[in-house]
Formats: sequence, structure tokens, C-alpha cells
Amino acid sequence: MKITIATIDKGGKDKLYSPLIEHYTKIIKSYSKLDIVDIFDNKISKAQDVSADIAKQSYSNAFSPYMTKNTTTIVLDPSSKEVDSFDFAFLLKDRVDVTFFIGGAFGLERGFVDQCNNAISFGKITLSHKLIKVVLLEQIFRGLSINNNHPYHK
Amino acid sequence: MKITIATIDKGGKDKLYSPLIEHYTKIIKSYSKLDIVDIFDNKISKAQDVSADIAKQSYSNAFSPYMTKNTTTIVLDPSSKEVDSFDFAFLLKDRVDVTFFIGGAFGLERGFVDQCNNAISFGKITLSHKLIKVVLLEQIFRGLSINNNHPYHK
Repeated sequence: MKITIATIDKGGKDKLYSPLIEHYTKIIKSYSKLDIVDIFDNKISKAQDVSADIAKQSYSNAFSPYMTKNTTTIVLDPSSKEVDSFDFAFLLKDRVDVTFFIGGAFGLERGFVDQCNNAISFGKITLSHKLIKVVLLEQIFRGLSINNNHPYHK
Repeated sequence: MKITIATIDKGGKDKLYSPLIEHYTKIIKSYSKLDIVDIFDNKISKAQDVSADIAKQSYSNAFSPYMTKNTTTIVLDPSSKEVDSFDFAFLLKDRVDVTFFIGGAFGLERGFVDQCNNAISFGKITLSHKLIKVVLLEQIFRGLSINNNHPYHK
């Protein structure tokens, strides 16, 4: 199995979040390959200075190389269907290649969300970008533990 | 303002989560006093070996000293009403003394949840105990930022 997480994020090391991100990355790798792709460039930076709509367009453009036919695309979108950890595990079950998308500060274009195979919400609360990434990683590990009958999730 | 977070947790320093917990504790303190009380003792440990019901009773007993009349009690309970970050901020607004409760591995007694002033859920997904604490701290900081018109939450 191969999982990719694509985010609109400057990336880089961070004393607070990197240890957790590295921890979950490491334990997920007992079940699946995992790549975290943090995307941020001049185009996105300039787009964010123009307007929310232009910013969201720039996110869709940045994500487009990852929207391939041979991957199951799952986007985190607060306005979409809320899942619990078992629903989430089921989304991963028997998949070979899965790509997750986490939008930028201005969210995502409706058109982009609609193009993904699945759009899910983890709840109504707004969380910091970096904390969402940790929550997603924890849910991926929990989901793969559920699918592999590993006791972590209990 | 004074906020207490009471949890059923062994506490102690942890390389992964403690830096984040300390970070949010520090930034929350610009708005409010904050105490995190991690409770775990022999009684809870033994109760958890007996049954889920006995474990939950032991959590209620451990929390009872914090159920005082002069604090607004808010319990995190997955089966209760889900809030967004603005609902959550509103719960903190104009409060002088607030106590949060996070249950143990077996959840909480219904009777305990019903005794609290507010019971809230942050979403359907199951998160690790330590990650829930970080999410609660982030929401407290976000809520106090909203109530104080600080730009963090935008």
C-alpha cells in the first residue's frame, strides 16, 4: 500500500509538531509506504495576497499533478460528510494507492473537492493546519490498525 | 479567568506530546490561569482490571473533588452535542472559572456526564488520549482568541 498526503504548507522542521509527525510516519510505515508532500511556492504566496478565490485556484493547480487515475483521492473538507474512525478505516481498506489532500489557509475550490473520489470531515471545529496533519496521521495509523486487527485502536 | 483540565492520565513528561502541551499552556496563560491535573492512582488501575463499569465509577470518584459549585464544568463526551470553534468560544465567554473533564480509556459514567454543566463533542473520530488533550488546548486558545478579538483564529 502507498499513501500520499499532499498539503499546502511551507513544510520544514518544527520543534513542536515535527516529532509527532515523524513518530506517526514511522509507525504507519509498518503498514504502508507514506509520503508527505508539503507544497508552497511563489505562485501560491502571490495568489493568497490577491483574494480567497485566486488562492483556492492556486491550491487546485498545485494539487493537480497528484490527481492521477491510479490513486484513490480523499480530500479533507469541513463541509463534507463527517466520518468516525471506523468509516475512515473502511475508506482505506483494500486500497493500493491513496492520496489525501489538506487545503490551504483559504480552504479549497468546490470544483476540486468534487473531483476527488471521497470528501470527508473530521468534525466541525477549526484546527491549526499542523494539528490537522497530526490528526490525519493518527487516524491513518488507527485505520490501518483496525484493518489489520491490531489492538492499537481499542 | 481560571481554567482547569482534569484528565484520567498518568501524566509525566513525554517527548512527543509534552512540547505541544507546554506550548499551548504557555500561550493560553496570556488570557487565563491554567492548571492541568492528570489523575491516575492504584484505585483506577485496579478498577480498570475489573470491568468497564467499575473503571468508569473510579473516574467519577477521582473527578468528584473538582465538581464544585463555583466552577462551570464542561465534559468532553463523544456522544454529546458536537460544537464548532465558535460554539466552543461562546461556552468560555465571560466565565470566571471553568473545569474541563477528559475521561479515561473506558469513557465516563452517564451520571457523571449528566452532572456537568455542559457536555460537548469535538467530532466522531476516536483520538488518542494525549492528542485529545492537545486538541482541547488548541481549542481553548482559539476560543479565548475569538473572545478577545485576537487574529489567531482567522
